[in-house]
Amino acid sequence: MRTRLTDFFGLSLPVIQAPMAFVAGGALAAAVSRAGGLGLIGGGYGDAGWIETQFDIAGDVPVGCGFISFALQERPWLLDQVLARKPRALFLSFADPAPWLDKVRAAGVPVICQVQTFRDACHALNLGVDVVVAQGGDAGGHGQSRGTMAFVPEVADEIARRGSATLICAAGGIADARGVLAALALGADGAVIGTRFWAAQEALVDERLVALTLAHGGDDTIRTRVVDTVRRIDWPGRYSGRVLRSSFVERWHGDEAGLLHDLPEQEKRWQAAVAEADPSVVAPFVGEAIGLVQAPQSAAGVIASIRAGLQKGFRPDQYSAIDS
Amino acid sequence: MRTRLTDFFGLSLPVIQAPMAFVAGGALAAAVSRAGGLGLIGGGYGDAGWIETQFDIAGDVPVGCGFISFALQERPWLLDQVLARKPRALFLSFADPAPWLDKVRAAGVPVICQVQTFRDACHALNLGVDVVVAQGGDAGGHGQSRGTMAFVPEVADEIARRGSATLICAAGGIADARGVLAALALGADGAVIGTRFWAAQEALVDERLVALTLAHGGDDTIRTRVVDTVRRIDWPGRYSGRVLRSSFVERWHGDEAGLLHDLPEQEKRWQAAVAEADPSVVAPFVGEAIGLVQAPQSAAGVIASIRAGLQKGFRPDQYSAIDS
Repeated sequence: MRTRLTDFFGLSLPVIQAPMAFVAGGALAAAVSRAGGLGLIGGGYGDAGWIETQFDIAGDVPVGCGFISFALQERPWLLDQVLARKPRALFLSFADPAPWLDKVRAAGVPVICQVQTFRDACHALNLGVDVVVAQGGDAGGHGQSRGTMAFVPEVADEIARRGSATLICAAGGIADARGVLAALALGADGAVIGTRFWAAQEALVDERLVALTLAHGGDDTIRTRVVDTVRRIDWPGRYSGRVLRSSFVERWHGDEAGLLHDLPEQEKRWQAAVAEADPSVVAPFVGEAIGLVQAPQSAAGVIASIRAGLQKGFRPDQYSAIDS
Repeated sequence: MRTRLTDFFGLSLPVIQAPMAFVAGGALAAAVSRAGGLGLIGGGYGDAGWIETQFDIAGDVPVGCGFISFALQERPWLLDQVLARKPRALFLSFADPAPWLDKVRAAGVPVICQVQTFRDACHALNLGVDVVVAQGGDAGGHGQSRGTMAFVPEVADEIARRGSATLICAAGGIADARGVLAALALGADGAVIGTRFWAAQEALVDERLVALTLAHGGDDTIRTRVVDTVRRIDWPGRYSGRVLRSSFVERWHGDEAGLLHDLPEQEKRWQAAVAEADPSVVAPFVGEAIGLVQAPQSAAGVIASIRAGLQKGFRPDQYSAIDS
């Protein structure tokens, strides 16, 4: 399937793998790129040594890199480090990308800017980024509350109104060919997929956690600040993280003040649980699309199954054959 | 466009108009049905005289009726009253529909059951309703937090797994042909549209409020309990209502205890503002799709524009032509 996105990046299907912090290493990113999608290392909060290692693992396969943009504010030298690896794209989320754009453009690297509100989408369009990702709150990990379904066409309309050349991708709640086709129907040029790749064999996630998480559905996820609070990561107030519910999250969600009061003790508990992959405490960052993921697969297997669905294409009769 | 939904109800496009309480009267429902969709009177909380009047207004045009199901618990005779009007369908939301099904089936009236969680979807499938509506929190009015994008295919998979004959529709964030096509791509047989019909000329909404609301986008909506609190309507805790933000809502959202404390005074303020259509206080129940609605149209105009979009069909090349 050919779209403006596949032509822009030279992909064989309009799928970008979300640069999930701590989860999307060089092996996952390279596997996605080899299979025809756009693979991205999850630079996240910015651990220079880890990022270097992951680019080494990706080797000759062209991959991009994502950052939680405020990490760059704290460690601006990371940008030079990553640009030196000639990334296929830079994927920026959660803070104003303006301070970094000149340098990234000078390096000839495409900029993908993920936004969570229409207001931030307009800012990204003003900056002339190459791709804007309209991320709905359906997504796993950090985000805000707009739903993917209406957010994507609202941004697409704004792009059309401006006659902008910026491409648009949809993110949030997309795990398979149905979601990619829906994204295209809504006016997007492609889709960003996170949760299904979180469960991929190349992702840096404890396999016990993956197995336990896949037994759950979208109802079992929640947007919360509990996980950031216990990890002492100071996110701006408008962002929360969608996670799988755990007893720990249920206990403290809505009582973050209580959690702060008991933080030293609860932090120890959290860290021990992470080491043990204890599902009563640990709450992995997954989206509502977890209900669409049945089993861990290789990244190539994920891409192959999406490609097969896209090749069948959009056939309402297929979904709505009359039972008779 | 023909789907299982259009065949089941004899529609000429797979669109159901949401039975918005106080808003969807006989004129709107009849206009939608005449244009080829499924029009529904918003029986809501159950005002017997109002419902009777609206069926009279619809006249010979076949329309259905929706209820907030717990209204039926309080006034079960309403069901007999509506069934006597031979409605085209009964649309039940927000409470267990089980107590009413035998009577509705005995009258030969199809049952549409709107749900907001996968768990409730399974319950509706167990009951064998004719149509399940998977409503995402993107929707206006009452609902919960699941996003439309992943919720719909999760329910569609469950229907397929069971080999169930129940049809599925998507609701939440859908306002135009793009949304209807996305719903079908996600595995639905049709789409429920609320907000765009809220702004239709036949809807029972003050036209000043419509004009003011259409100046806003999806970012300007919020899920809140403030409007129910000030109206003294006791909704179960898991439901909130998506409304357009107003100063009044911003003031009390998150401080519902303070609102309760000052309720007599604030209730007077609210009622006066409703009479005046004062947009600093009144917060109409609209969804994120308000950002996709540009101007009031007749219901027939809405249907015609959706039909035109559907007839163009799903053409990725149309959305993703290479700029060159």
